[in-house]
Amino acid sequence: MRLSKLFTKTIKTVPADEAAKNAKLLIRAGFIHKEMAGVYSFLPLGLRVLNNIAGIVREEMDAVGGQEVLMPALQLKERYEATGRWDDRVVDDWFKTKLINGAELGLGFSHEEDLSPLLRNFVNSYKDLPLMVYQVQTKFRNELRSKSGLMRGREFLMKDMYSFAVTQAEHEAVYAKIQAAYGKIFYRLGIGDQTFLTSASGGSFSKYSHEFQTLSEAGEDTIYLDRQKKVAINKEVFTTEVIADLGLKGEDLEEVRAIEVGNIFSLGTKFSKPFNLTVPDEHDVRQPVLMGCYGIGISRVMGTIAELKSDDRGLIWPQSIAPAKVHLVCLGNSAKVIQAADRLYNDLTAAGTLVIYDDRDERAGEKLADADLIGLPYRLVISDKTVTGNMVEVKRRSETAVTLVDQKSVMKALE
Amino acid sequence: MRLSKLFTKTIKTVPADEAAKNAKLLIRAGFIHKEMAGVYSFLPLGLRVLNNIAGIVREEMDAVGGQEVLMPALQLKERYEATGRWDDRVVDDWFKTKLINGAELGLGFSHEEDLSPLLRNFVNSYKDLPLMVYQVQTKFRNELRSKSGLMRGREFLMKDMYSFAVTQAEHEAVYAKIQAAYGKIFYRLGIGDQTFLTSASGGSFSKYSHEFQTLSEAGEDTIYLDRQKKVAINKEVFTTEVIADLGLKGEDLEEVRAIEVGNIFSLGTKFSKPFNLTVPDEHDVRQPVLMGCYGIGISRVMGTIAELKSDDRGLIWPQSIAPAKVHLVCLGNSAKVIQAADRLYNDLTAAGTLVIYDDRDERAGEKLADADLIGLPYRLVISDKTVTGNMVEVKRRSETAVTLVDQKSVMKALE
Repeated sequence: MRLSKLFTKTIKTVPADEAAKNAKLLIRAGFIHKEMAGVYSFLPLGLRVLNNIAGIVREEMDAVGGQEVLMPALQLKERYEATGRWDDRVVDDWFKTKLINGAELGLGFSHEEDLSPLLRNFVNSYKDLPLMVYQVQTKFRNELRSKSGLMRGREFLMKDMYSFAVTQAEHEAVYAKIQAAYGKIFYRLGIGDQTFLTSASGGSFSKYSHEFQTLSEAGEDTIYLDRQKKVAINKEVFTTEVIADLGLKGEDLEEVRAIEVGNIFSLGTKFSKPFNLTVPDEHDVRQPVLMGCYGIGISRVMGTIAELKSDDRGLIWPQSIAPAKVHLVCLGNSAKVIQAADRLYNDLTAAGTLVIYDDRDERAGEKLADADLIGLPYRLVISDKTVTGNMVEVKRRSETAVTLVDQKSVMKALE
Repeated sequence: MRLSKLFTKTIKTVPADEAAKNAKLLIRAGFIHKEMAGVYSFLPLGLRVLNNIAGIVREEMDAVGGQEVLMPALQLKERYEATGRWDDRVVDDWFKTKLINGAELGLGFSHEEDLSPLLRNFVNSYKDLPLMVYQVQTKFRNELRSKSGLMRGREFLMKDMYSFAVTQAEHEAVYAKIQAAYGKIFYRLGIGDQTFLTSASGGSFSKYSHEFQTLSEAGEDTIYLDRQKKVAINKEVFTTEVIADLGLKGEDLEEVRAIEVGNIFSLGTKFSKPFNLTVPDEHDVRQPVLMGCYGIGISRVMGTIAELKSDDRGLIWPQSIAPAKVHLVCLGNSAKVIQAADRLYNDLTAAGTLVIYDDRDERAGEKLADADLIGLPYRLVISDKTVTGNMVEVKRRSETAVTLVDQKSVMKALE
């Protein structure tokens, strides 16, 4: 992609009301645009990151047997009345709307109330279970305040998976499988080392739910972390009994701030009973299905990574989700430099490497600053200085060292 | 994909309130699920089709230089007041909602009001134009009635592109380029021969807008078609003057029903002026930007294709958008048959062919009926009869002929 063709540009000033570091950086780099508090547009580079994150999440959900669907935002009132979740005093962040005929509808913040009745059409026997269904879909939550950029959106992209099982043992096996998949996902996204399985409040059907918490001062949660054992306890359930129950010791735990990037939850029969989602078990006795739900905020993860993976010069994308691998900068206007840069761009692109090519007629300082702000894993520079020896300057965004490499060996330097 | 693992099944009964042929077929085949009138969930097979359609549309939009973004559903009231589109008497199919603090918001039915102010951040000169920005995004329209299945959704997936140009000539060149891309798209989707460029009302900034109308008795539009010249006139502008103006003759025109699958429209300065989206031209005089908008209803196209490409036994997907290429049916329970079918499934999958493999323990009649209903391009049958000679039965969904092919030559038979 030639930067001269990309319609976005890096920008100097962010909206005055934008307080969050992640949003400020992403706005300055031209990845997102703020429409209102908690509501952002994703621009070409930002959409690539969002899609890359969603792609990794999809692969891991598919790998454990998840089946992808797409459910609507518009939600029927009667279904939420059936589960007791229509009332604004129960769910305080509903967006609601109305059909022309006056019938009230909600905008989905979660999809248990869609999926449970849907599955009644397809699940007839214990042999049809366990099963896992997921979607990557836009959610709406009417947050009173939304000051954390992509980390607390009023409209945001979420992966929500739901599991369905007959027996408690079957449910727990599925739950463990998805928990392991979540661990993989955060490593693939480049935040595995800072992300910890955290016990949190469980509700009526299990002692605990589990969150994946990524350490960050910008986080809204307080957790107590055992760095050795790589597990944590959310402040909301932090008691002497829980510490002991989880086999931890108070003196090993450190109070830290963290961002909840994923959560998994046993729902029991809370959403199967109201919709009569039951199956005959092996003894032909109808049993209400046991459910679990498993969320990852795709756009929130993008905000989290921007928050963590950056320095005072800009973003530092992990290669797995970067909008491209290489930022190629052409410095200088001589025909020789331009030819060499064009050729390198064409060669890399032909080899399947995603490149952002800064072919603009801009000052060198501007171009190098933009490369740092946009934050691709590798910066390549072709200039009058490098071109004489058929060399190219290679620098990793995450490191300070600059090396000169023969243009023909550049693919090797990118490995 | 093994059918024994797919959570959806074909179903015998469709909701009593479902009147549209496309929705009935897609529900019976397990592609979609009706949540309420005009609001559907996409199940695994249906989501594949939807993604395949969106993929083709994206490729053609990228090919003409379109840049993809993703804008939000939540819309600010003040922007629509600026363009005069907030009032329900002007736009009669708004869904509206409110923030907790009482501020009114809309749910986007189109995105001119987001994109014009957004571009003010990035467009500084005539040299930045022309440019084309598009998204594939969920739209909301509060239809009074919604009885046409996927063809008139209250919530639906749409590709909306917007173009920005300085001069009228530049605008017209972009418009022509996108018009040509639309032609390609409908051919790639398998409905090119039934889809016709149709002149419709143009508004203040151009004589005509253009629709792409696909012939169907289920369509809501009436058009006057010149089959020789492959162009049509929408009834809304059908006058003697218009016929003459377009170089057509009344006697060559046939009145037919059609479905509007795409439309392209010159917007002039209607949305650039209210947001002061101007650029200095070559003489450094600021000019309001000329815009165009270009829509394709992705989910509506899916409904249209289901409506057109089907018979009394079920769906007949064009290969370009089918959820898989091959429906492999294992008939019989002998080890030999199952082994041969498993091997064929593995071989085809390893060769990159998408296969739905009916490995279920079901009656033959059921399996063959399901294959017809689901409607993949090729049906392969392995049975006691075929397996003795290492053969496989091959049938195209769109044809009646059945041929016996050596299992080793099956790839050739699928070309």
